[in-house]
Amino acid sequence: MSERRRKSSPEARRGKVVALCGGVGGAKLALGLDRVLPAGDLLLVCNTGDDFEHLGLHVSPDLDTVMYTLAGLANPETGWGRRDESWAFMRALEALGGESWFRLGDGDLATHVERTRRLGAGESLTAITAHFARRLGLASALLPMSDAPVRTMVETSEGTLPFQHYFVRLRCGPAVRRIRFDGAESAPPNPALLSALAAADLALVVICPSNPYLSIDPILALPGLRAALADCAAPVVAVSPLIAGKAVKGPAAKIMAELGIPQTQAAIARHYDGLIDGLVLDEADAAEARNLPIPVAVTRTLMQSLDDRVALARRVLEFGIRLDARKGGAR
Amino acid sequence: MSERRRKSSPEARRGKVVALCGGVGGAKLALGLDRVLPAGDLLLVCNTGDDFEHLGLHVSPDLDTVMYTLAGLANPETGWGRRDESWAFMRALEALGGESWFRLGDGDLATHVERTRRLGAGESLTAITAHFARRLGLASALLPMSDAPVRTMVETSEGTLPFQHYFVRLRCGPAVRRIRFDGAESAPPNPALLSALAAADLALVVICPSNPYLSIDPILALPGLRAALADCAAPVVAVSPLIAGKAVKGPAAKIMAELGIPQTQAAIARHYDGLIDGLVLDEADAAEARNLPIPVAVTRTLMQSLDDRVALARRVLEFGIRLDARKGGAR
Repeated sequence: MSERRRKSSPEARRGKVVALCGGVGGAKLALGLDRVLPAGDLLLVCNTGDDFEHLGLHVSPDLDTVMYTLAGLANPETGWGRRDESWAFMRALEALGGESWFRLGDGDLATHVERTRRLGAGESLTAITAHFARRLGLASALLPMSDAPVRTMVETSEGTLPFQHYFVRLRCGPAVRRIRFDGAESAPPNPALLSALAAADLALVVICPSNPYLSIDPILALPGLRAALADCAAPVVAVSPLIAGKAVKGPAAKIMAELGIPQTQAAIARHYDGLIDGLVLDEADAAEARNLPIPVAVTRTLMQSLDDRVALARRVLEFGIRLDARKGGAR
Repeated sequence: MSERRRKSSPEARRGKVVALCGGVGGAKLALGLDRVLPAGDLLLVCNTGDDFEHLGLHVSPDLDTVMYTLAGLANPETGWGRRDESWAFMRALEALGGESWFRLGDGDLATHVERTRRLGAGESLTAITAHFARRLGLASALLPMSDAPVRTMVETSEGTLPFQHYFVRLRCGPAVRRIRFDGAESAPPNPALLSALAAADLALVVICPSNPYLSIDPILALPGLRAALADCAAPVVAVSPLIAGKAVKGPAAKIMAELGIPQTQAAIARHYDGLIDGLVLDEADAAEARNLPIPVAVTRTLMQSLDDRVALARRVLEFGIRLDARKGGAR
């Protein structure tokens, strides 16, 4: 194994890259990786713990955010939903007295209606996602973490809330006490993900700077997935979602505080302990980086422009190659 | 009975009016009746044989056409769908490879999504329709003919087609050999319709100038409905959908030809024989009117403006009063 790995190291970036991600934050790095890697070399695996049935439609927010982002259809202001979106459906729905706390744009709705129709016809979420990705011309493969339903439930100061009620309806207001992933224990990880992790041509696994507790943990909760990550031949690199103790967007830092976890890079490293071979963190945290017990790459992790996304992706891949040489050499 | 009827005759137009209708043609007269009658006096009963599941959504085209028309939301160009409609959903659906032969506008979609959600939650189509009508401020009551599914199937030169495939996808192209209403034999008529027909305050039943074969026959096919119409104390008046042997819109005349029926007012009268007490027909057919074996009102039946709709509604109500006096007097 170490022989194979040493030989493959210099070309590691030409092997397959698996990226685990959630929604907005993850999608930014996913886009960078998609632009940097050769077509077909990137396998994006999305959290589906946020999925829910709304208005009778199956909504997969993280899959859609990543799909729209890679297809160039995403709304650059919000990070989720579609650009140049119109809202006639929501206005008409409100006039009929329908639920309006979860905003579905007119174009976005096509994704949910067609997905729901195909699920009803017996297609898997994986097959539907692949079909959409093909139609929208994606160069990278996009996968739901599982075809079985997993539902993130947030136990809060105001009771247990389905994820979207916590996240969208109540805007992450209630204090989080515990997060659980209903159905995860019996949800088989996507077979394509397991194959990719076991394949000889795997170059790197990237944990995107998504919320570790809400977006990455559901993926890690699938049976066998932690073991598959631990056993995979390639290095596993996480990109920290924190910059100087704050999340760029979303409730990661707030949740850490509520769970009694310090909002530090050390806490992120601890959260992924035993899973990752290296952590990428922001220059703002360079001082803390020196005291972490794992290899660290310090760079700009704030992604405002497409150039930022591409630059971070390159940095992550280079870090992966470096770790690969080390990991391979140590075996 | 005759005593009661004679007394009530002069005020007949203050009693309840039941109107049976299909889509576009029926909705025009429905609007006229709605504008002329006091709020709450009109009960509009719509054909649901055209209903179908499309993209996993329950679409009720005739109910929606009448609802949008009465709410002032209808598209004045097409007669169906909503005014000022946008089409982002259809464009996005086509990009995903979804079915696009049946056009669902962005605002219109809210009706189908919310209806489907409520049906899934166990509400009846009657309750949902009443809720929508209330939300949109309708003064008249709007009822599906039945809460049980009836599906109009058109046996044609190109095989048996579900109604919308015949009507929309193939634009009424195939020659019609027979029309059947699957499920009608076991679909209970809407109880509110039966109550209205049996009630002492019923002033008039109007069969709107909808397609007799496609839009009215499904209603008449419901068990007990013909008997309830025959037994009702008020006169039943049909407004002919033909003007000089042609339908204003839609395939009524084409279908009559294909079924070997002459496209005449006599044929319309024969079609409703035993059910109606009078027929309203257009001035263009004044000559034919003289030879019909039932009472006839000759007037302008082409409805281009709102004034036309209101004028025809008034004419129909006046004709009803006249027939009521006659019918009552004869008893």
